[in-house]
Amino acid sequence: MIHVLIIGNGNVASHLATAFEKNPNIALKQISSRALDSVPMSDVAIIAVSDDAISEVANKLVNYQGLLVHTSGSVDVKQIKAKRNGVFYPLQSFTKGKKVDFTQVPFCLEASVDSDLLLLEKLAQSLGAKAYRINSLQRKKIHLAAVFANNFTNHMYSIANDICDQEKIPFEILHPLIAETANKVQGISPKEAQTGPAIRRDQQTIEKHISQLTKEQQRLYLLITKSIQSH
Amino acid sequence: MIHVLIIGNGNVASHLATAFEKNPNIALKQISSRALDSVPMSDVAIIAVSDDAISEVANKLVNYQGLLVHTSGSVDVKQIKAKRNGVFYPLQSFTKGKKVDFTQVPFCLEASVDSDLLLLEKLAQSLGAKAYRINSLQRKKIHLAAVFANNFTNHMYSIANDICDQEKIPFEILHPLIAETANKVQGISPKEAQTGPAIRRDQQTIEKHISQLTKEQQRLYLLITKSIQSH
Repeated sequence: MIHVLIIGNGNVASHLATAFEKNPNIALKQISSRALDSVPMSDVAIIAVSDDAISEVANKLVNYQGLLVHTSGSVDVKQIKAKRNGVFYPLQSFTKGKKVDFTQVPFCLEASVDSDLLLLEKLAQSLGAKAYRINSLQRKKIHLAAVFANNFTNHMYSIANDICDQEKIPFEILHPLIAETANKVQGISPKEAQTGPAIRRDQQTIEKHISQLTKEQQRLYLLITKSIQSH
Repeated sequence: MIHVLIIGNGNVASHLATAFEKNPNIALKQISSRALDSVPMSDVAIIAVSDDAISEVANKLVNYQGLLVHTSGSVDVKQIKAKRNGVFYPLQSFTKGKKVDFTQVPFCLEASVDSDLLLLEKLAQSLGAKAYRINSLQRKKIHLAAVFANNFTNHMYSIANDICDQEKIPFEILHPLIAETANKVQGISPKEAQTGPAIRRDQQTIEKHISQLTKEQQRLYLLITKSIQSH
């Protein structure tokens, strides 16, 4: 039995709590980050609060005897000053109210000592999740890579949606292409998967496209095209 | 029984032929675009060659009596000078050697007369595909939108991959996030789905990110961030 304490009640905290509750090998308690005066003992305490609040919460728990971890992609593990610190970062985009399938959530784990890493691995496995040992420098890079793979990719979808709207084309017509584009790089590298006028250096099509775009879209189109060609 | 002739032997031609062959209601013939001297009669002839070659092939078939269509996203229907012309454009990214699930391929259909549109709809339905009536202007816009939703999105994956490589992080760690990002916009609009430091105007994180990137990546990061913020 692993005794787990979750601190916080945002998105990540709720999804983790829901998943742990179902597991008979986990004894779960959850408290608000405003209730740190009497913290129950546990094997692991998971600080699942916003990045800005982690250090404040951790500072109230410097004497905590269990393993104290946060769930952030970008905050250094050193912001947790307890004797046993670590990171339990789920690399996935969580939506409020949408059930999370934790078998599809890679966890980036960090801890100073091997026994704590093993404990975190056990915890990730109890959720059916895949675990990776990732140091703080690597985690920062992953967080940055995720901005491209998630936020910036989503913005490409947004512009595609805008272009469709102009001519009253239902955006759903692009859903299968979006799904296939994401699916393709699960098997081959994005570099191998690249197609389109930029990589073909099809200047005629590129110019036709540019002429149909707004000024802002043109700047993006040209810069991304150049980047694809120099890649 | 619909008699279908496919002209060409590239990627799209092969995938269409494989799918039609399985359907007992389709009588299929396939010829090379170099064998246009004696073209067998059919209800529909599908010119599935590269964009540049469509007009040359079509010009050899001006007297063709059936419905003559091409499969391109960007070529005007007027490049086909036969009496009955049209477009049968599958909006999907095809990979050589990878089986295509045509139930996941939206077809953009165009024809001058309603009876020909109905014939193309029947043809798309025989593949289990979804059919959309799309005029040439709309089709050009869709082709442009697809560059953002497919080629440019894939380039975002490429940069994420490069960033992972720098610190020897396996790119597979991002696969579930990529899948979820694509999956999310099948239910809500990309605008609603947008998250991350750009939309939160989290300047501190943005600056930390910028400092970790190459010059070229920085230019992309800044321009896309600005575009997200002004969206």
